[in-house]
Amino acid sequence: MVTLQDVRDAAERIKGVAHRTPVVTSRTLDARVGAQVFLKAENLQRIGAFKFRGAYNAIRKLDPGQLARGIAAYSSGNHAQAVALAAQELGTTAVIVMPEDTPRSKLDAVAGYGAEIITYDRYTGNREELGRRLADERGLALIPPYEHPDVIAGQGTAALELLEEVGELDAIVVPVGGGGLIAGSAVAAKGLQPGIEVIGVEPEAGDDTRRSLAAGERVRIEVPRTIADGQAAPTPGELTFSITRRLVNRIVLVSDEQLRDALRFAVDRLKLVMEPSGASGLAALLAGRVEAPPQRIGVIISGGNVGAARLAELLA
Amino acid sequence: MVTLQDVRDAAERIKGVAHRTPVVTSRTLDARVGAQVFLKAENLQRIGAFKFRGAYNAIRKLDPGQLARGIAAYSSGNHAQAVALAAQELGTTAVIVMPEDTPRSKLDAVAGYGAEIITYDRYTGNREELGRRLADERGLALIPPYEHPDVIAGQGTAALELLEEVGELDAIVVPVGGGGLIAGSAVAAKGLQPGIEVIGVEPEAGDDTRRSLAAGERVRIEVPRTIADGQAAPTPGELTFSITRRLVNRIVLVSDEQLRDALRFAVDRLKLVMEPSGASGLAALLAGRVEAPPQRIGVIISGGNVGAARLAELLA
Repeated sequence: MVTLQDVRDAAERIKGVAHRTPVVTSRTLDARVGAQVFLKAENLQRIGAFKFRGAYNAIRKLDPGQLARGIAAYSSGNHAQAVALAAQELGTTAVIVMPEDTPRSKLDAVAGYGAEIITYDRYTGNREELGRRLADERGLALIPPYEHPDVIAGQGTAALELLEEVGELDAIVVPVGGGGLIAGSAVAAKGLQPGIEVIGVEPEAGDDTRRSLAAGERVRIEVPRTIADGQAAPTPGELTFSITRRLVNRIVLVSDEQLRDALRFAVDRLKLVMEPSGASGLAALLAGRVEAPPQRIGVIISGGNVGAARLAELLA
Repeated sequence: MVTLQDVRDAAERIKGVAHRTPVVTSRTLDARVGAQVFLKAENLQRIGAFKFRGAYNAIRKLDPGQLARGIAAYSSGNHAQAVALAAQELGTTAVIVMPEDTPRSKLDAVAGYGAEIITYDRYTGNREELGRRLADERGLALIPPYEHPDVIAGQGTAALELLEEVGELDAIVVPVGGGGLIAGSAVAAKGLQPGIEVIGVEPEAGDDTRRSLAAGERVRIEVPRTIADGQAAPTPGELTFSITRRLVNRIVLVSDEQLRDALRFAVDRLKLVMEPSGASGLAALLAGRVEAPPQRIGVIISGGNVGAARLAELLA
């Protein structure tokens, strides 16, 4: 179980290390949506995504002996950089299992934080197994991307900050990938404001959590093909699903074209760079996918790691 | 003459209407430059550029009778939107003289703030003359883009906020177009910290202010061909030059390719959208054009109105 107190404790742990990211508003956005919208800009978080919150909280909670022995993780995306930077900040070492076809820039970023990288073939290898074996052999603490209460509590701190700053909200809109962000956000939001509606957003091609909630159990789908690579999980986590099924009110879906529109709006109107997954909450609001939007809506903009060349393709 | 007190008075006038924009920092940027860099993000200002500060300050200072009769301005760029929005905020009307080939999106933005638009042929018409005649005929107050003490004082409020927030700086780096921003910034910065170095940045193809400072008098060059359209002035203003020659320490130049590199850096690392002119200070630092950079440097990021399609071209 993860509680509001866990999120509050996480907020204390990350204080002064993670950024307290700004809440961005736009009159144009409000007019388009017909509501007051508050964007929590986690694309401006360290390493460019909310993931640093959970990774740092989880590593910071390790006992000193374990911390000194080091960290293991597997990720092709933002969690890799998050663990690498958190380990560096806490004076220990990290080994990250990454697909061998990861873009050079992401490998360089992880290596730049001093982490060791072990690559594997994503079509034949099993990253969870590789990560576990590595952790066992070297005595490392394995920090998974979302299936961990301390990771979930850390991710919840973004919603906590948002609600502390803007006060009462009618709803909070959160991207759903493996489920760590929405689980943590839901714990924080419902803990602080029991009446708040928690709305998850998935890409149309990757609606595993929506299907799982409808079925009342975890459903596995084909690996989604979507520009929202941060939300391409084929099934929700076991722990994250146990929280989302209890606290999330509804899931709405967005198309890749709606995600592109949101990236364009973010550039034109907000002057902010978002990665497709990171813009999914904004996309849902702009596309009218949140029907009958309530008056005051918070949105977690989860990340901005898209890269200039890829952004140019997506905007064109 | 424009004084620090004028800038302080302007800051009082725009309070709660203009955004107090954030100061952005980046460890990666600091490491690249070898200094502590503080970016004042005026791309996040209302209408997407610092221009709102000066326009609002100048219009707010009009006497009630003049304010009620309305405003005239000429601009193809950010000043048009700034005047239109400021007039709307102050409950009056504005007429903006704009080139007939202005992109649709910019015309729409100005019209969206309720302003009347009068177009002219930029190859045969004289916008200053058109603006003056229009103002005379209709009894409007003409608010020029930079040749006006209240406009200059308003533009200086960005530097004022920056210095108030981060304290002592060794230098401040400011884009130079017609000279309103750098004149106001220099008044504020030297007023608060007499020892500060004020560094202007121009595009290589549009170095009219550098040449003018070297010559000791205003020099006119060919209309510059550069991606930094906000800095394409062929000669400094008379009033702005009288201030910059007194208070600006040096001018450095950046190439279009260095501006493109800065836009990419802003996307990749800062997750911020800048227009080419707006990124010129960042470009100068990244390209090493500020030789022997001092320890603590402030930079005004002057605007972000580039548009998604154009940004895609510039990043590609």
